[in-house]
Amino acid sequence: MSAAGPLVPPDPPPQTGPGPEPFGHRLHARMAAGSHLCVGIDPHPGLLDAWGLPDTPKGLGAFGRGLIEAASRGGAAAVKPQSALFERHGSGGIGVLEEVLGWARQVGLLTVLDVKRGDIGSTMRGYAEAYLKDGAPLSADSITVSPYLGFGSLKPAIDLAEENGRGIFVLAFTSNPEGPQVQRAVTAEGPQVGEAMIQAVAQANAGAVPMGDLGVVIGATLKSLPPTGSRVLPQVGGPILVPGLGAQGGRPEDLTRLFGKARRLVLATASRTIARSGPDPESLAATVRENVENLSFLEN
Amino acid sequence: MSAAGPLVPPDPPPQTGPGPEPFGHRLHARMAAGSHLCVGIDPHPGLLDAWGLPDTPKGLGAFGRGLIEAASRGGAAAVKPQSALFERHGSGGIGVLEEVLGWARQVGLLTVLDVKRGDIGSTMRGYAEAYLKDGAPLSADSITVSPYLGFGSLKPAIDLAEENGRGIFVLAFTSNPEGPQVQRAVTAEGPQVGEAMIQAVAQANAGAVPMGDLGVVIGATLKSLPPTGSRVLPQVGGPILVPGLGAQGGRPEDLTRLFGKARRLVLATASRTIARSGPDPESLAATVRENVENLSFLEN
Repeated sequence: MSAAGPLVPPDPPPQTGPGPEPFGHRLHARMAAGSHLCVGIDPHPGLLDAWGLPDTPKGLGAFGRGLIEAASRGGAAAVKPQSALFERHGSGGIGVLEEVLGWARQVGLLTVLDVKRGDIGSTMRGYAEAYLKDGAPLSADSITVSPYLGFGSLKPAIDLAEENGRGIFVLAFTSNPEGPQVQRAVTAEGPQVGEAMIQAVAQANAGAVPMGDLGVVIGATLKSLPPTGSRVLPQVGGPILVPGLGAQGGRPEDLTRLFGKARRLVLATASRTIARSGPDPESLAATVRENVENLSFLEN
Repeated sequence: MSAAGPLVPPDPPPQTGPGPEPFGHRLHARMAAGSHLCVGIDPHPGLLDAWGLPDTPKGLGAFGRGLIEAASRGGAAAVKPQSALFERHGSGGIGVLEEVLGWARQVGLLTVLDVKRGDIGSTMRGYAEAYLKDGAPLSADSITVSPYLGFGSLKPAIDLAEENGRGIFVLAFTSNPEGPQVQRAVTAEGPQVGEAMIQAVAQANAGAVPMGDLGVVIGATLKSLPPTGSRVLPQVGGPILVPGLGAQGGRPEDLTRLFGKARRLVLATASRTIARSGPDPESLAATVRENVENLSFLEN
């Protein structure tokens, strides 16, 4: 370096390798191979009881392990552990959640950790480091996030996800009856809040081939999407996580009605409808396989 | 019971005891005694480093313990641990968060666990059981919640809080520049989203004396509240959690400008501005005391 120092910042060091494979690529490969199913891991007390398991960290572990084995054997693309139900058991439950994420990784299932986090600045960065960083105890392939603090507040997580080959699913429209109060409120720019999320995700994914790393969450039991949402969805360019298939009332045919051509981007979650066929491993794997087949029309 | 059945529902069973003391009562007593300060426990890597602590569960524990001792000696009403920064360390970090909550309880400080959770139905119930139930490893006096899924989706948490003498703070308006996209969007009923949250909280607290268990979160660095928000706030009937005093730019005089007569309900959080005076215990306790005194005008 000269004594006067450089006039312009030095070039970044040359890339020494291809970097981590982007989440969008990894998920797209599984979808294109015919699997659009994400198996929810929701250790509710009632389900644990039905499996003959105690509502303890150990019971949660056995439940998670059973579902992961079935998801793997039945050809699911991903699993979605529900953090809330592990958090009930404090550090003991979180320790099991770490194991669940590790088991899924071992059998090659992608993980969508359902945490619905959302905060600002360095706190959002803290959440991102908790869940989207290599080597973090709770490192997952992707997480769900909640945008009450504005889409822009998610930037630290979006940045870290991109850097590390991870994915993020932004809540847009949920199917619970209380959701429209916020999600259908009208933003200053014109679209509804949920539409604004779909637009922002589409913009962030623009140009990504075959699929970007940023997804949206849209409930399967919605009657319809607002007009802008329907228009933008085919350009969303990232995965559409759709919870609520089965037990919550959503049916595969609803997916075509709601998503039209964008249906190839759908990653559909089934939780109770699968867990209820357990704990018998054969029955669980068969139910997973059946759900995968029921969703294969999404590729056509 | 007659064969025809009762014409009106039977009376509820008589109360057999006084039940747990409501969170609103407990917090109000501290405020009325002159303390409106909540000390944030935000173990950011930079702050840990400034304290000469490693960014490990052990380091987080020493940081939390130092702040809790200072908060107690300096006369704070409550402490607010930021869950994100503990979650970075997985089950090890959550184990320390359990200890932090326990230490605060031991010295008689109320806890506001900043988790900003939000989900629906039995999953929201799962979060409530994780944080608002006696005997749960992460049991706190109150938590923050995020209403992207609608105010109504929070009901399982509100119910459990009331049952167990706990409190809930609902995000209304945050002070980050990205917040207005969602929080100032206009609901079908007319008010902005953040106003609708203030209204819903006011309605839930109606009749509570001296203060209800349900609070709102409003940023200290906001320029102004929208008209309905300003009108409803004096009737909110519950605590107003105001983060962002000090390091984030909020000043005590902003509280009067923003909240007017409702300022007596303010629980103001200071985090970095206090932590930066550490780790010396005398200096930390003095800073807490100074912040408590700076806020004493809220009672007048």
